[in-house]
Amino acid sequence: MSASEKIWTAGLVIIGDEILSGRTHDKNIAQIASWLQVQGIRLSEVRVVPDVQKRIVEAVNALREAYDYLFTTGGIGPTHDDITVDAVAQALGVDVIVHPTAREILERYYADKGGVTEARLRMARVPEGAELIPNRMSGAPGIKLGSVHLMAGVPHITAGMLDALTGALEGGKPLLTETVGCWTPESEVADILREVEKAHENCQIGSYPFFRDGKVGANFVVRSTNDEDLKNAVESLRDGLANAGFEVTPGGI
Amino acid sequence: MSASEKIWTAGLVIIGDEILSGRTHDKNIAQIASWLQVQGIRLSEVRVVPDVQKRIVEAVNALREAYDYLFTTGGIGPTHDDITVDAVAQALGVDVIVHPTAREILERYYADKGGVTEARLRMARVPEGAELIPNRMSGAPGIKLGSVHLMAGVPHITAGMLDALTGALEGGKPLLTETVGCWTPESEVADILREVEKAHENCQIGSYPFFRDGKVGANFVVRSTNDEDLKNAVESLRDGLANAGFEVTPGGI
Repeated sequence: MSASEKIWTAGLVIIGDEILSGRTHDKNIAQIASWLQVQGIRLSEVRVVPDVQKRIVEAVNALREAYDYLFTTGGIGPTHDDITVDAVAQALGVDVIVHPTAREILERYYADKGGVTEARLRMARVPEGAELIPNRMSGAPGIKLGSVHLMAGVPHITAGMLDALTGALEGGKPLLTETVGCWTPESEVADILREVEKAHENCQIGSYPFFRDGKVGANFVVRSTNDEDLKNAVESLRDGLANAGFEVTPGGI
Repeated sequence: MSASEKIWTAGLVIIGDEILSGRTHDKNIAQIASWLQVQGIRLSEVRVVPDVQKRIVEAVNALREAYDYLFTTGGIGPTHDDITVDAVAQALGVDVIVHPTAREILERYYADKGGVTEARLRMARVPEGAELIPNRMSGAPGIKLGSVHLMAGVPHITAGMLDALTGALEGGKPLLTETVGCWTPESEVADILREVEKAHENCQIGSYPFFRDGKVGANFVVRSTNDEDLKNAVESLRDGLANAGFEVTPGGI
C-alpha cells in the first residue's frame, strides 16, 4: 500500500453523564463524523463514558492507541464536573498547567464580565505541552496535544472549534459515497445488494431501511475511495434494481 | 451494601457504519438510556463500532463482562451487511441456528408479501439458546440470550422491542433527578455547585450550559437514588443560587 493509500482513522470519546442518562440527545457524533469525512479521516469508533476520571482515562488510552487521531467532547468547562483535562493529562502521563495564552484569552473575554475567577481559570488549565484550539463562540479554547483533541460538549461551540481545525489535520482520500433509494422492503433486494457488492471489490454497500409516510423503503449507500469504482458499482446497482422491476430513486429517498 | 442497593448497569453497542459516517443521527442512545432509567438500570457505556464482525465481537465481549446487561442496536436485518447475529454468536461461543418460532412469525408476516425468501429467512437466525423479543412493528423479532439483547437499528422498531421488554429486566432503585436552571454562565456559579455537591454525599450535580435566544444559561441536574437526599440538595442549591442573587428557574430552562 503506498503512502497515498493510507486510511487515516479517528476515535471519539464523549464524556457525558447527560448523554448516558438520556437527558441530552448527542449531536456531536454526527457533526464530528461529517467533518472528519471532509478531512479524509474516518471515524472508526465512539465511546460514551460517564464523568468518572478512571473511565475517561481508560477510553482515551484505548482509542488514542488504536487510531491516528483522538477527539473528546465535554468536560472542559469551569465546574466541578469538568474533569477531562485532568483525565487526559493522567492518560498521557503529564502534569496539568495553566496555559498563559489561555489565561490571557479568558482575561480579555471576562474583562467586562466580572473578571477571571478561580472557577473561570479552570478553563485555562491544559495538559503540559498542549496547544490551544481557538473558539470564536466563547472564551474557553479547545486543547490539542499531539493526536489528542479536547473539544467542547455544547455542539455549537464544538462546531467553532472544528472550523478552527479545518485543513489542519493530515488525512487521506475522502471516502466517496452515492445513495440510491427504493420504496421497497430491503429484504426484497438483499440478493441484488450482495451480488453487486461482491462484483465490485473496492466498494461497500450499506442498506438503511426506513418507515415513512406509512410506507417502508430503504436507501442503499455505496462507498469507495475510487471515483471510477464507485460509479461502476452504482450503475450495476441501479441496473440490477431496475431489471428486477424496482423503481429507483437516484440520490436516495 | 444490601441487595436492594445494588446498582444495575448496562452497556450499549451501536453497530453502524451509517452513524460513524455522520449520515444518520443516532436516536437510540437517548431512547434506550431513558428507557433503562425507568427500569432502574443505568446506561454506563456506549460504543459505536463499524459493521465489521471482529470489532463487534470485541465490543460485545468487553461490555457484557463489564455490565449487568448488554444491548446492541443494528445489523439484524436481511441484507449482507447484517452480521450482528453472527458476531454475537461468535462472542458467546455458540452456533447460529434458525429459530423455529421466528421462522413461523416471518412466514405469517410475509404470507401476502411474496413469502419467506432466503434473504428474509436471515432474520430468523439467532445464536443457539436465544429467546425472541416480540416486535409489533415488523416481522423480524429482537433476540435475547442471557444478559444480551439484540435490538433493531431503526428507532421506531427499537421502541417496539423496548416496549416488549418493559418490566422484564431486574433493576434497582431508579436514579431520581431534579433540574434547576439559571440564565447565567455556569462559571459564575461553579463555587456554589461544588459546595452543594460536597455537602450532600449521596447526590451528584451535573452542570449543562447552553446558548439559546442569544443568551447563555445552564441547567443544573441533581441526581440521587434517595428522595429525601435529593430534595435537601435541591433546596440547598436553590437557596445558594438565590442568596447569591441569581434568578432560579425550578424544573430547568
